[in-house]
Amino acid sequence: MGCVIDGCPAGLELSAADIEKELIRRRPGKAYGSRDEEDKPEILSGVYEGKTLGSPIAIIVKNNNQKSGDYDELKNIYRPGHADFTWQAKYGFRDHRGGGRSSGRETLCRVAAGAVAKKFLSLSGIKITAWTSSVAGLQMPSLGEAGFDFEEIERNPLRIPEKNSAQKAMVKIEELRSEGDSAGGVISCLVTGIAAGLGEPVFDKLDARLSSAVLSIGACKGIEFGSGFAAAGLKGSENNDMSCDNGKFTTNNCGGILGGISSGQDIFFKAAFKPTPSISKPQKVLDSEGKIREIEIKGRHDVCIVPRAVPVVEAMTALVLADFILLRRTARL
Amino acid sequence: MGCVIDGCPAGLELSAADIEKELIRRRPGKAYGSRDEEDKPEILSGVYEGKTLGSPIAIIVKNNNQKSGDYDELKNIYRPGHADFTWQAKYGFRDHRGGGRSSGRETLCRVAAGAVAKKFLSLSGIKITAWTSSVAGLQMPSLGEAGFDFEEIERNPLRIPEKNSAQKAMVKIEELRSEGDSAGGVISCLVTGIAAGLGEPVFDKLDARLSSAVLSIGACKGIEFGSGFAAAGLKGSENNDMSCDNGKFTTNNCGGILGGISSGQDIFFKAAFKPTPSISKPQKVLDSEGKIREIEIKGRHDVCIVPRAVPVVEAMTALVLADFILLRRTARL
Amino acid sequence: MGCVIDGCPAGLELSAADIEKELIRRRPGKAYGSRDEEDKPEILSGVYEGKTLGSPIAIIVKNNNQKSGDYDELKNIYRPGHADFTWQAKYGFRDHRGGGRSSGRETLCRVAAGAVAKKFLSLSGIKITAWTSSVAGLQMPSLGEAGFDFEEIERNPLRIPEKNSAQKAMVKIEELRSEGDSAGGVISCLVTGIAAGLGEPVFDKLDARLSSAVLSIGACKGIEFGSGFAAAGLKGSENNDMSCDNGKFTTNNCGGILGGISSGQDIFFKAAFKPTPSISKPQKVLDSEGKIREIEIKGRHDVCIVPRAVPVVEAMTALVLADFILLRRTARL
Amino acid sequence: MGCVIDGCPAGLELSAADIEKELIRRRPGKAYGSRDEEDKPEILSGVYEGKTLGSPIAIIVKNNNQKSGDYDELKNIYRPGHADFTWQAKYGFRDHRGGGRSSGRETLCRVAAGAVAKKFLSLSGIKITAWTSSVAGLQMPSLGEAGFDFEEIERNPLRIPEKNSAQKAMVKIEELRSEGDSAGGVISCLVTGIAAGLGEPVFDKLDARLSSAVLSIGACKGIEFGSGFAAAGLKGSENNDMSCDNGKFTTNNCGGILGGISSGQDIFFKAAFKPTPSISKPQKVLDSEGKIREIEIKGRHDVCIVPRAVPVVEAMTALVLADFILLRRTARL
Repeated sequence: MGCVIDGCPAGLELSAADIEKELIRRRPGKAYGSRDEEDKPEILSGVYEGKTLGSPIAIIVKNNNQKSGDYDELKNIYRPGHADFTWQAKYGFRDHRGGGRSSGRETLCRVAAGAVAKKFLSLSGIKITAWTSSVAGLQMPSLGEAGFDFEEIERNPLRIPEKNSAQKAMVKIEELRSEGDSAGGVISCLVTGIAAGLGEPVFDKLDARLSSAVLSIGACKGIEFGSGFAAAGLKGSENNDMSCDNGKFTTNNCGGILGGISSGQDIFFKAAFKPTPSISKPQKVLDSEGKIREIEIKGRHDVCIVPRAVPVVEAMTALVLADFILLRRTARL
Repeated sequence: MGCVIDGCPAGLELSAADIEKELIRRRPGKAYGSRDEEDKPEILSGVYEGKTLGSPIAIIVKNNNQKSGDYDELKNIYRPGHADFTWQAKYGFRDHRGGGRSSGRETLCRVAAGAVAKKFLSLSGIKITAWTSSVAGLQMPSLGEAGFDFEEIERNPLRIPEKNSAQKAMVKIEELRSEGDSAGGVISCLVTGIAAGLGEPVFDKLDARLSSAVLSIGACKGIEFGSGFAAAGLKGSENNDMSCDNGKFTTNNCGGILGGISSGQDIFFKAAFKPTPSISKPQKVLDSEGKIREIEIKGRHDVCIVPRAVPVVEAMTALVLADFILLRRTARL
Repeated sequence: MGCVIDGCPAGLELSAADIEKELIRRRPGKAYGSRDEEDKPEILSGVYEGKTLGSPIAIIVKNNNQKSGDYDELKNIYRPGHADFTWQAKYGFRDHRGGGRSSGRETLCRVAAGAVAKKFLSLSGIKITAWTSSVAGLQMPSLGEAGFDFEEIERNPLRIPEKNSAQKAMVKIEELRSEGDSAGGVISCLVTGIAAGLGEPVFDKLDARLSSAVLSIGACKGIEFGSGFAAAGLKGSENNDMSCDNGKFTTNNCGGILGGISSGQDIFFKAAFKPTPSISKPQKVLDSEGKIREIEIKGRHDVCIVPRAVPVVEAMTALVLADFILLRRTARL
Repeated sequence: MGCVIDGCPAGLELSAADIEKELIRRRPGKAYGSRDEEDKPEILSGVYEGKTLGSPIAIIVKNNNQKSGDYDELKNIYRPGHADFTWQAKYGFRDHRGGGRSSGRETLCRVAAGAVAKKFLSLSGIKITAWTSSVAGLQMPSLGEAGFDFEEIERNPLRIPEKNSAQKAMVKIEELRSEGDSAGGVISCLVTGIAAGLGEPVFDKLDARLSSAVLSIGACKGIEFGSGFAAAGLKGSENNDMSCDNGKFTTNNCGGILGGISSGQDIFFKAAFKPTPSISKPQKVLDSEGKIREIEIKGRHDVCIVPRAVPVVEAMTALVLADFILLRRTARL
């Protein structure tokens, strides 16, 4: 796997270690119930003497652990919930083996690129933190609620911001594993330290671009900003974020974005991830001859990809914000 | 207001009437409790003898009804829930009068362009239908539920697909109006007749592009595809759409998109719209000198923009689909 | 005719007069032997209280002088040297009347947009001056040669930088007019006050983008930078621009661009324009039924468009430079 | 070095051998007086079972022969005619070693990508042939002139289309080498088998995009289409390409492009390349402290890069044409 990052300004300190640090967060050693991969990034271009040159940064991660044989039985079937059928419909031809562009493995490149964007954003004091806010149907404590603890997020493999909830969720995940089933969940993402004025007012609204970036992650099925779908049921007088006498806002129902432009409040959104479609329970599937077969999908599959998607959501957010920070430099004379 | 549509193929039959038909749907005569506007589109370029030339189509709609005076008192304040402050933060300078690029009035251009895209899509048998699926906190019957009636949607001013629910909702809206308050809601959108194979597999996934397009509509705060946020709580065995023996799918939890590419099932998504931020109830607002004032926003404002946003959601959907249909022509040799 | 300028920073002072000043230079009152047009620009959006808002600037120029009847006899023939046949081949359908997108009249929009870019560039002390350096086969004095006079350029209708040469050229043009024939020429363009560091190092080299911009002008058939085609015959030791002891360069063979990036020297290029293809001499032409006819093209046609193309070349240069000045703001941390 | 090719349709037969065949043409074994490189391409993605998948094609070529030590003395000086100073001015930081993005070595990626485009174009019967039409100030026979022989081009290391001229040119090049000097030249490029209708009518004219592509090659300083700069001195009646009674054209002064769109005639252009700036003769150069030094550039340098640029010009042409062929698919309903 590899990626090419274009548009990174010259002079940013960057090392393979900066990237590996994020790749490790995406790996199963940290996230619960995931398959084993070791990901060593190499920077092939764009960095010289520890600093970016302004030219494209090519990063490559070699895969030491691929077993193409695992995929032989998938050659002639279209797995439910996967891109097998749609890819075939589009291109008339496909690589049925895992590791391709519609595999979860491609998120590695997003995380690698996001690590560069995060480094750039840190210079402006911007911090992005995502976590698992619900998993397998269990709701975790929300930001600001009792028990919510930022420190806890990276301590448990499910990236849940409260210890007891994390333990309950792990029990639930183990149950699903033993059933040969899988779980989805919701990821929350908070951006602090962001200045007002990021985003374009019409088509390239900050929330529009973030939506596109987050929905481009494989299993993501929805996104909401601030009070989101709940806002649809509120009155204007309830949902408008009023200013206090100290110039701050009493609420952040807008999720830090008004009219597509950052307001200077924290940016906050939630993204829904469907359960992993690869399950070992028997399923009825379509094959390439249009017939229905019953199969059990074998091989190493994550019961729940949500915790591993947390750094991916952060990465996509970082990439969008970095672009808008550069773009803002052109907004005025 | 005006728009320029680039990339429309040559040879499409198109008249100002095709565009006006959609603009009328966006107007208050049809939608409930909205201000009066008359929108006559003129096609300035790109059409000759009733057919598109392949060159950009410029459409202009003159505004006969603008009263800039209405906005004078808004010059030095930042209205809650509006882009006043964020625009100022970005550009250091703004036009405080309504009708600008962060006004709801810009959606007129989206609907005009969408009318062209719809005409193009109709040639492939694609039909886009959106409706109000919840408003002011009231849930309307869902697609497939008892009472749901496609025919009813355009018969009532709230674009609700069931008559009794529509009447209840109108009562609720009237209450909010008399309180000087406003309402939001959720819009559902269904696309039928779509072939498999639309969308790009990684960053320009069909759902990613639709998200971006729909979230670029002013008051939109969230989007979900298929079973969406609910999918996050399901098991894989529940959420996977299984094939029946007849080659069809028993469910459409994926909302017609798998791996970012259309599957040939109907495309289905929901989008959340916040309540109109312009309310006549007194509100605390920030002014341009950093002080807090209490104001009542006057002028003509929609109590609920949701029904008027219905054709806007359809338009943005049409534009995205038209692009992907053209792009698909390049996917194979 | 109209244009939309996107990406202009907020806060630039701009009026319709700024634009009209450049449009007048493109008009025949100034340029020799050209048809009569009056071009009054209106700014429809993007400017408020005399300053740009950062949002798109739409400019429209209404045509008071179009006689579509002039073009009726062109409906079924493909004029030599025009885009009639190629447009038909591409789109299968075309508007045969003048004023379309392959008419010289579209350069009006380029000049209008270029006027905005020039205003922006003037803030950085950048000045763009183009002139007619050869016409109808007659070579004019070159930059630095005896007689070359910047002040003379806008004094004579052919925009020739030396009075006597201009008079000789006018005689030659009149001869061609009486023959029912036409002339081409070469335009030189000089940019002063440009800083080093503009342009991207690989595909979007400054000279590559300028080439594309200038070759996109209808009748342009070639471009060369600095010593250009002559450089191909020089030795490296002759063509390399050496530094003097004062840090300046003794020559500017590179035309102010090295490796695609501005070097801080003046940018200099020449562009070749073919003779106007519309001539009143009888010509053999192809018609839409594949037959050969002999026609004489009637109507008002410029004998030589070169002097009118001078402000167009300046405009396209200004637009490219403005983009790169904004882009340079993102090159470093 | 590596490249990523996006947008190649699925189903194209492609192997590393297809790419290597073109890379060999760029190597010094074929071209005269050039340094030794061995370039083995590996296809990392986008091809499966010998056919393209529709996803990006990543190609990498490992460099076995780089001696960074050769460049140590260049650390603090700005070589004349190179991008050393301009890169520093843009990014404030640079990699002074060869092999970077402003090195001639980057053309390897262009040739690799062009090989894929050529394979695609060959399916439509399109053939691109470039050659050296002048070198070191010596004019070679032109297309259609006595002695011009397509077969000869790839037989001599200078890629000159006539044997005797090639021998004379080689003698001249050897003289320049012994002087420690270098030579430039002009490359002609002919495209046969091209259909009418390629190119966009305004900014993305076929000639505009070809200009941009060819001028993006390092040492290129100019381009002209058809009769080019000579057309500027012709009368309209001389330059217009007239139709014969057989429906063909008697001349091709337009170079196969009218109004920015291919006419179905052969596309023909010439591009000027400056002499290699790296010469071993002593030169005055600027150093990073603003002082003037005298240096002799050591290391392996081509006396004349023109013959090696021939496949690069073909590659850039192929890439532009492939894009327009795909784009044309969207021009009509």
